[in-house]
Amino acid sequence: MAHIIGSALPNIPWQNRPAGSAEPVWRYTGNPIIDRTAVKDANSIFNSAVVPYKGAFRGVFRLDDITREQYLVTGESADGIHWKLNDEKIFRGYDPRLTFLDGRYFLSWVCHTDKGTSIGIAATDDFETWDRYENAVLPVSRNGVLFPRKVGGNYMLFTRPCDKGHTPYGDIFLSQSPDLTYWGKHRFVISPVNNWEMTKVGAGPTPIETDEGWLCFYHGVITSCNGFTYSMGAMITDINEPWKVLHRADCYLLSPRELYEFVGDVPNVVFPCAALTDAETGRIAIYYGGADTVVALAFTTVDETVEFIKAHDLIGR
Amino acid sequence: MAHIIGSALPNIPWQNRPAGSAEPVWRYTGNPIIDRTAVKDANSIFNSAVVPYKGAFRGVFRLDDITREQYLVTGESADGIHWKLNDEKIFRGYDPRLTFLDGRYFLSWVCHTDKGTSIGIAATDDFETWDRYENAVLPVSRNGVLFPRKVGGNYMLFTRPCDKGHTPYGDIFLSQSPDLTYWGKHRFVISPVNNWEMTKVGAGPTPIETDEGWLCFYHGVITSCNGFTYSMGAMITDINEPWKVLHRADCYLLSPRELYEFVGDVPNVVFPCAALTDAETGRIAIYYGGADTVVALAFTTVDETVEFIKAHDLIGR
Amino acid sequence: MAHIIGSALPNIPWQNRPAGSAEPVWRYTGNPIIDRTAVKDANSIFNSAVVPYKGAFRGVFRLDDITREQYLVTGESADGIHWKLNDEKIFRGYDPRLTFLDGRYFLSWVCHTDKGTSIGIAATDDFETWDRYENAVLPVSRNGVLFPRKVGGNYMLFTRPCDKGHTPYGDIFLSQSPDLTYWGKHRFVISPVNNWEMTKVGAGPTPIETDEGWLCFYHGVITSCNGFTYSMGAMITDINEPWKVLHRADCYLLSPRELYEFVGDVPNVVFPCAALTDAETGRIAIYYGGADTVVALAFTTVDETVEFIKAHDLIGR
Amino acid sequence: MAHIIGSALPNIPWQNRPAGSAEPVWRYTGNPIIDRTAVKDANSIFNSAVVPYKGAFRGVFRLDDITREQYLVTGESADGIHWKLNDEKIFRGYDPRLTFLDGRYFLSWVCHTDKGTSIGIAATDDFETWDRYENAVLPVSRNGVLFPRKVGGNYMLFTRPCDKGHTPYGDIFLSQSPDLTYWGKHRFVISPVNNWEMTKVGAGPTPIETDEGWLCFYHGVITSCNGFTYSMGAMITDINEPWKVLHRADCYLLSPRELYEFVGDVPNVVFPCAALTDAETGRIAIYYGGADTVVALAFTTVDETVEFIKAHDLIGR
Amino acid sequence: MAHIIGSALPNIPWQNRPAGSAEPVWRYTGNPIIDRTAVKDANSIFNSAVVPYKGAFRGVFRLDDITREQYLVTGESADGIHWKLNDEKIFRGYDPRLTFLDGRYFLSWVCHTDKGTSIGIAATDDFETWDRYENAVLPVSRNGVLFPRKVGGNYMLFTRPCDKGHTPYGDIFLSQSPDLTYWGKHRFVISPVNNWEMTKVGAGPTPIETDEGWLCFYHGVITSCNGFTYSMGAMITDINEPWKVLHRADCYLLSPRELYEFVGDVPNVVFPCAALTDAETGRIAIYYGGADTVVALAFTTVDETVEFIKAHDLIGR
Amino acid sequence: MAHIIGSALPNIPWQNRPAGSAEPVWRYTGNPIIDRTAVKDANSIFNSAVVPYKGAFRGVFRLDDITREQYLVTGESADGIHWKLNDEKIFRGYDPRLTFLDGRYFLSWVCHTDKGTSIGIAATDDFETWDRYENAVLPVSRNGVLFPRKVGGNYMLFTRPCDKGHTPYGDIFLSQSPDLTYWGKHRFVISPVNNWEMTKVGAGPTPIETDEGWLCFYHGVITSCNGFTYSMGAMITDINEPWKVLHRADCYLLSPRELYEFVGDVPNVVFPCAALTDAETGRIAIYYGGADTVVALAFTTVDETVEFIKAHDLIGR
Repeated sequence: MAHIIGSALPNIPWQNRPAGSAEPVWRYTGNPIIDRTAVKDANSIFNSAVVPYKGAFRGVFRLDDITREQYLVTGESADGIHWKLNDEKIFRGYDPRLTFLDGRYFLSWVCHTDKGTSIGIAATDDFETWDRYENAVLPVSRNGVLFPRKVGGNYMLFTRPCDKGHTPYGDIFLSQSPDLTYWGKHRFVISPVNNWEMTKVGAGPTPIETDEGWLCFYHGVITSCNGFTYSMGAMITDINEPWKVLHRADCYLLSPRELYEFVGDVPNVVFPCAALTDAETGRIAIYYGGADTVVALAFTTVDETVEFIKAHDLIGR
Repeated sequence: MAHIIGSALPNIPWQNRPAGSAEPVWRYTGNPIIDRTAVKDANSIFNSAVVPYKGAFRGVFRLDDITREQYLVTGESADGIHWKLNDEKIFRGYDPRLTFLDGRYFLSWVCHTDKGTSIGIAATDDFETWDRYENAVLPVSRNGVLFPRKVGGNYMLFTRPCDKGHTPYGDIFLSQSPDLTYWGKHRFVISPVNNWEMTKVGAGPTPIETDEGWLCFYHGVITSCNGFTYSMGAMITDINEPWKVLHRADCYLLSPRELYEFVGDVPNVVFPCAALTDAETGRIAIYYGGADTVVALAFTTVDETVEFIKAHDLIGR
Repeated sequence: MAHIIGSALPNIPWQNRPAGSAEPVWRYTGNPIIDRTAVKDANSIFNSAVVPYKGAFRGVFRLDDITREQYLVTGESADGIHWKLNDEKIFRGYDPRLTFLDGRYFLSWVCHTDKGTSIGIAATDDFETWDRYENAVLPVSRNGVLFPRKVGGNYMLFTRPCDKGHTPYGDIFLSQSPDLTYWGKHRFVISPVNNWEMTKVGAGPTPIETDEGWLCFYHGVITSCNGFTYSMGAMITDINEPWKVLHRADCYLLSPRELYEFVGDVPNVVFPCAALTDAETGRIAIYYGGADTVVALAFTTVDETVEFIKAHDLIGR
Repeated sequence: MAHIIGSALPNIPWQNRPAGSAEPVWRYTGNPIIDRTAVKDANSIFNSAVVPYKGAFRGVFRLDDITREQYLVTGESADGIHWKLNDEKIFRGYDPRLTFLDGRYFLSWVCHTDKGTSIGIAATDDFETWDRYENAVLPVSRNGVLFPRKVGGNYMLFTRPCDKGHTPYGDIFLSQSPDLTYWGKHRFVISPVNNWEMTKVGAGPTPIETDEGWLCFYHGVITSCNGFTYSMGAMITDINEPWKVLHRADCYLLSPRELYEFVGDVPNVVFPCAALTDAETGRIAIYYGGADTVVALAFTTVDETVEFIKAHDLIGR
Repeated sequence: MAHIIGSALPNIPWQNRPAGSAEPVWRYTGNPIIDRTAVKDANSIFNSAVVPYKGAFRGVFRLDDITREQYLVTGESADGIHWKLNDEKIFRGYDPRLTFLDGRYFLSWVCHTDKGTSIGIAATDDFETWDRYENAVLPVSRNGVLFPRKVGGNYMLFTRPCDKGHTPYGDIFLSQSPDLTYWGKHRFVISPVNNWEMTKVGAGPTPIETDEGWLCFYHGVITSCNGFTYSMGAMITDINEPWKVLHRADCYLLSPRELYEFVGDVPNVVFPCAALTDAETGRIAIYYGGADTVVALAFTTVDETVEFIKAHDLIGR
Repeated sequence: MAHIIGSALPNIPWQNRPAGSAEPVWRYTGNPIIDRTAVKDANSIFNSAVVPYKGAFRGVFRLDDITREQYLVTGESADGIHWKLNDEKIFRGYDPRLTFLDGRYFLSWVCHTDKGTSIGIAATDDFETWDRYENAVLPVSRNGVLFPRKVGGNYMLFTRPCDKGHTPYGDIFLSQSPDLTYWGKHRFVISPVNNWEMTKVGAGPTPIETDEGWLCFYHGVITSCNGFTYSMGAMITDINEPWKVLHRADCYLLSPRELYEFVGDVPNVVFPCAALTDAETGRIAIYYGGADTVVALAFTTVDETVEFIKAHDLIGR
């Protein structure tokens, strides 16, 4: 039995596994939970991040407006399912992640620079005032994800170096820092290995600490005969050297099946950016974007996921 | 209050704005109004042009047959919504526009030459006999749109130079002619500026004369993580120097939202080719192609559109 | 009146042409007949092959599992519509074809080699034990289809040389062999000629012997403004020199129209891999993949198909 | 015997054919005649145009300076071989041609616009003051060459539509104009046909009027296993319909052989831009760029060239 | 000490290794031995094949004429250095190889087909009459080289599948045939492994039988910061299973150093197509093309070459 | 008058400006000073670094061996012109730079990693023993150049992020570090602006401290009609914020003119990697690679260079 190392979250959004389902991850029946009507003049709301906050939930949401500029806005929710979004755009950029680290809420996202995208980092205590850090990496990079604590005395950041376009390749790397400003000891983590992720991979939600190692959901992209498909996979990395992969599923855990994942501004996309966890029950609620158009929710447990990864493990083959 | 300079058209197709809608343009509830079943052996009917004609309406329609050759056919309608199409193919090519000019009906379209597409021009009085002009421009070009009157003593033509494939770039230019045969005084009009149109832009319906300038709907294309999305934007250009842009919305006015716009031979396409106007009420009915498969209809008024463009104006920023 | 040269198959799956339909091929109303739920841990089941076997039916099915590896599995059915699939993966690769030849069942498929895909060939008597032959051609090739008998003393194989990616070109060739091991006397068959197949063509089901020649269904691909569309066409080749095309339709006979053809892992795909025939009635049941996700079924008769091809014949123009 | 229709030019630069040579065109033994040392801070001087002027010669020269910007400067020479160049840059752009037309000297060249290169046109009487016309064509185009007189009442201009990069394709077109401002009646002239020009062709010196038709030298480009080679070919077009090709050599007349053609800023380039002619003797002196670095000179006669073209004629095959 | 298994050739062209040279292969001091002046209207003569014939030598030469079409012509020589070439073009195509096999002279070359290049095969007894075989492989392929005897009862042919352009990749394969018509048992031989050949490799002269195995010279291509460089490498393959590589030099044996290799129609090319051998002395004379423009000659001995390959062997590392 | 801030170097290699020369930089008349014959089994020696060392000179040289692997070797010289190179390969990689920093000699170079090139850093006291640091940046990067002292308390490193191929773009960035292990505060320095460098730029020799700022030579690349040309430019950056450019020449200072720069493994390359300076006289000796094949030497003075940069300054325009 795998266990989450962390806090209890009794009000985690939750639905039990549907009868007859054998899937490692199951969808919320009320999906999508957020669409473009949540904010005036929005084109789409998706690929967003969520954390527990004072007994309720706060989030940072990717909002493409009708000029198709990408912004981040905040939102709040009592149950993690029904959200009130704020109009105010806090940053330009996209694909936010949130991490509770050293007692503050850290946001990392794909920010724009004149030389291509980089990883923006900012911290807040109240989701109103943000302390912006230096961008962590040289452009061009995307999918920057902070770990929820220091490891071996250093902060840890997943990145994904890429090009300025819709990059046709991509590996996950990990960079280390004593201070969130100077980064080094860069380590390669994973390349695409399996078919479902063969074009590129990128980190997803904040890694989840477990007694088996860091449980990391990530996205992978396959180039089909007619475009891309984005799916969600998972791996477990070493607690002390988190660039070392202990287990990794050779298959996806979630892939487009529903119309809100197949049809929209970007067809055939499941893109996870956040996960809530309840250490007491092992429950995990995953927030993901559908077709780059809406926010959707899916569920699993740490135990089922770890078991599934091990049952489909490509490490050691 | 903006006004259309032109004729009244009391029988313009029309539906009032739906309750609760805040969109600049709203869809006809009976969309799509034409699909492939309108003509035997048609693969699809879309991207088509319509004009008032003797108290009713006539149109020229893009018809891809089941060999996937592209043809133009004519059609007639009493109400602009229910159409009877003729089998006879009048020209090879695609994406027609119709302009009432000097008392005749001028058709411009993307015609084929051995060296790439050019802009065909032909005139008719009765939609049965057509007088073909020299092709207006050197290949390769698409999206040729005539103005409804001479400006400064010259005929005016929007064009969009491009390459022989599915061009990944495209600006709108304007060329002038004293006689519809020899063209010169070429002027640049717009490049992609906003995100939603960043890949390319091309002229749409015949420009609409208003007391604010020429109201021009056009299409813009964004390259997403997995293909293109075609949306409709709008700008207002100077009455006497129509290559000078006075106002231009930084956002689209219509973008794929409905299944008939998302799903079809070409996913995620809204492509406007014609507009009817009623100078008395300021009503505008826009005909556009959905997913390169069907013809759809949307409504707005000159006043609401001009106000919307000015409210989102990128000129002067 | 065209006739099939072959056996009667009284239990061929069948539905009569729907009232009012003028299409050369009509869909089974219960489509799709097989989807991913047929096998545990399947991502999709499509592009599959079927033959009559001892009064019932056997098939070899393309199964992409949730790693997105491609495998072949067998299945059995009493009526050709309701199938029981086996878990056991018999080969890696995809897009199988089955041919009854010299009293055995021959499977050809796209197999993987270190240097790109080749055409695998294997024979069975019972769909349990398979005798594997040398790969027929140098990589890279796909769409290898055996004829159901020797012609001129040689075995005949359609192939489609291509590149290692999602090849943007492709012609059908025919190779000959005295022994299924050594191949030569390579003959060109067809290139793309018509718009609907302009990007590439590839052989489909096992050719059907008729008194008019070999009736060959094949797929063709058009590159639209936003991706590919796969449709089904047909031609008739000479009985004794089957690389000589006697008749060929300039249009497709089946093209994406239904949601299960438009939406799925690969949007806008109709891909035929097998056909059952009843020589007594001339009925033909075509198995095809929909959107690279499901298996679907369509019907026609030899007489209607031959008549349709001749009515749209591009040979002799 | 072919004859030039034009003026005598007794002081045309000239060397007789070297003993033993069987080449259609022979090089000046003092090549190159101009290099970068002719102007301070020049990177290279090449691809230049020359005309007779008041008993001597004037020219417009392409000068790339050490920023690698391209400019045009004028020069003068008593013998057409030894040149004095002026420092003053008259226009930005490159690859000038000069044509004596309607009693003035017309310059056409590749000028820059914000939207890609176009064909600039300017006229002078004294090579000091220039009257600039509207650019003749929509971008993107290069190799614009005016005819030395009106034909059928219109001015005639060769052009070569292309893309913004180092275009991998290119045909010669002809556009017509009553007034040098408005252009139309566009006609296709030639595409690459022969191996030596298979990548692209572009017009060269001002066409030479002869009793056989317009003698037109042009350049053609072959893509070798390792880059491009630029050679010079020739054709004869109809006097009254100069887009109709009467004769065209299947081979080049001049191709890189000398170190100053093989080695320089752009290896393997022979690029003709001007020709002087003496109607009395039939002598032709061709100015061409070597390796995009220097100006070189070559000789032939109208008679030998016409005979050579006819002897290698691909028209009528 | 390695030995050639074959005939003595006392009149093999030869120069001793120059004093002070430590290179594995040394150039003939009279290089180039053939250039374009050898045949009227030739653009270039290079990449050619040579065999001993009745006490003298015969060859088949690649001749690009001034249309840049590629042809093969024959030639004869008493000493292998001074050649008389015949005007008559025996085949279209390029890059010939000659093999003495079963008592006849077999020519293999890159022949054109409508679908891309293939490997032509023809046999002669007198270099005047040629018996043409079926093309050996499906297009597209180049660098087809026959072995000088059957191995394991089959004829052996090196090939190099490629694309229709100037292919940016390429492996050497080996195909087998009982009869020179039907080919099968295709075996992969080598891919690029070393830097100097990283873009592609292709077979060179007819393999040389030695007591160490088949000594095979081949060419490899590196993509530099500014184009390609073609060099010559070598490997030794198993006598009975010649697709098995026993030894292979990690470095080239000959690479562009001289102006006639650096400068010409294709800069930076050394391309070997033939080798003469003297079994008595172990001498080897290699004919290679320089800069795709001239024929050059280089020398080595079997002993020095085998020793060099083993000293730089990458097999077994 | 500009002055170098640093040590005197009375034995700096030197030749006075040739009579009549007006060039900002003049070549050593004995060029090239090193070629492939300096080391056994070398393919080429170029793009190398040099420092004063105990009254003489030491260097680290790029050596491509005959496998075309890239290595670094050391060498020593009494006069900086005649060099003795050592066989021993100290590191794999290429394009070394040497910096005397904190009393040690620091080497930075393009090192290989599984994921693309990075910047290797190592320090030595004696050119025999090297202390290797962590690679400074995530792949992919090239042209890493250390400053000769800390600035603002941090070490400074120029880098040039790029792709894994022969990158068609490239900007110079600067990264900072307190300890040579952790890097951050990344600053953009320059993009291509001028024509001669339009494809990409990269840092060259170690920046030279002057009383005007840091004098930085760099290389720039233009894409011609047929490949790349590499030239040398120069800029002056702020002493305390060295990412701020104070002056920058709009033109190159050295560009291919000599055969050893035009012809070789990579045609048309001048690539500077090191500079010696004499603070007393202001003399500068620049070491650069020619055609990626040989090492060459050129001279200038700080005064003439600074004056030249200011005379052609693009900053402030």
